[in-house]
Amino acid sequence: MNVIEIADAADGRLADYLRLRDVNLRRSLEAEHGLFLAEGEKVVRRALHAGYRPRSLLLTERRRGVLPGIAADLPADLAAGPEAVPVYVVPESVAEGVVGFHLHRGVLGSFHRMPLPGLGTVLAGARTAVVLEDIVDHTNVGAIFRSAAGLGVDAVVLAPRCADPLYRRAVRVSMGAVFTLPYTRLTDWYGGLSELRERGFRLLALTPAPGSVLLPDALAGAAPDDRHALLLGTEGEGLSSRWLDQADVRVRIPMAERDVDSLNVTAAAAVACYELVRSH
Amino acid sequence: MNVIEIADAADGRLADYLRLRDVNLRRSLEAEHGLFLAEGEKVVRRALHAGYRPRSLLLTERRRGVLPGIAADLPADLAAGPEAVPVYVVPESVAEGVVGFHLHRGVLGSFHRMPLPGLGTVLAGARTAVVLEDIVDHTNVGAIFRSAAGLGVDAVVLAPRCADPLYRRAVRVSMGAVFTLPYTRLTDWYGGLSELRERGFRLLALTPAPGSVLLPDALAGAAPDDRHALLLGTEGEGLSSRWLDQADVRVRIPMAERDVDSLNVTAAAAVACYELVRSH
Repeated sequence: MNVIEIADAADGRLADYLRLRDVNLRRSLEAEHGLFLAEGEKVVRRALHAGYRPRSLLLTERRRGVLPGIAADLPADLAAGPEAVPVYVVPESVAEGVVGFHLHRGVLGSFHRMPLPGLGTVLAGARTAVVLEDIVDHTNVGAIFRSAAGLGVDAVVLAPRCADPLYRRAVRVSMGAVFTLPYTRLTDWYGGLSELRERGFRLLALTPAPGSVLLPDALAGAAPDDRHALLLGTEGEGLSSRWLDQADVRVRIPMAERDVDSLNVTAAAAVACYELVRSH
Repeated sequence: MNVIEIADAADGRLADYLRLRDVNLRRSLEAEHGLFLAEGEKVVRRALHAGYRPRSLLLTERRRGVLPGIAADLPADLAAGPEAVPVYVVPESVAEGVVGFHLHRGVLGSFHRMPLPGLGTVLAGARTAVVLEDIVDHTNVGAIFRSAAGLGVDAVVLAPRCADPLYRRAVRVSMGAVFTLPYTRLTDWYGGLSELRERGFRLLALTPAPGSVLLPDALAGAAPDDRHALLLGTEGEGLSSRWLDQADVRVRIPMAERDVDSLNVTAAAAVACYELVRSH
């Protein structure tokens, strides 16, 4: 392993890890270099398992013990030799100086992004998909990926304005599900749903508004080979009227007659994914 | 309405609203005075609807317009006369000086707590209940209340160490479901579950560990009058071995064969509540 001790938070080799809570800086830095960060031993190893290639790793001295496990997950050319990935080991105070807070987990990886696959690739063989319109909160995106992957949904499709699943917080909340669940992003918000319909997907728009059908009823009698895409809208406003109009059917989760208007978007997504997979 | 303009953040009448992000201060202050805070017009009005009596309300000048709606929800003796509840109207800068951050929603209410009902009261007529062991995160507690109420679970029971549902963040995330869904707290962690069993509840321990039964299978053939309590454990460790041993059956949510160990606790709670209510 190419282990490098660094004692100075201003060392330029640590630039990938700078000020992790500065959202604007991170967005431009990560876009410019085509990188994303994974946090914690488990999530870093899941990124490696999924085939993402690291640019470097950062460990606090206390967490040196994770090295053998990570080394075992590295492809041979990155574990040793001229292309070996640099592993920066730093005191806790240096880590804190770089990232801007106490680095509790003590393990970070900076990874190269891969080009997003095309819609055809992501949906090949998929019978169930979740389509996120403008979910802007990274925690919600990560939580929905975790639920969709865990419950067995086959693919995720993002609208152009949906938050980035490879943003650090989304990655962490997803527990690495963003690495294993195939996803891509539509480039065309207005017309993009027609590409799903052309591929045989029936579009179910989840909305608590009146005039919708109970989700289990909408799925009753589905054949195993049917293709269903569940459309989920933003945290506050729900789906746009354009997407509601484009859907084949509006569906809702059966709710109690109480003074509660709706579930939050991650709870609704979990229940809907469960029902979707169950009916296939 | 007893509207009082205050221009000084140090005014003692605003003491209920002091430093909302100082968890230790809030815990002792709220326990000492038996109060809790509701945040935002909708949640404040839901607290009033549910019969909680306000100690005072705090509005920023910009949100003065909510007053008629709130006045309509106040009991007559609190809307006018010698017992009229004080409504403090303050500039935004004063609100920020008191609570410690920009008060985006601009509406706060300080309410008297009510004594928690006994277990018998909470469970009277209930066929489904959720029992939270040591969920320590207020966001998770609030989200579980919202899902349980929305999906139609009848009651919630808390272990002694579970986080407070009336803590500000739990209240907000629950969207006021903590006011409408009956709940109480066990005083005895070790033996408390036997009180549920004595009342005819079958105890289902939710756990991703091997050796559990699929939740839908565990509920198959349930009669409408059967009573089921779903036990949920902490975010990281899950249920204690004591509670696992006390349960009638260990259940799990059907999961895909992927590199995802489990759902997060709020997603798992939502799916499990959905399945629980559906089978009754």
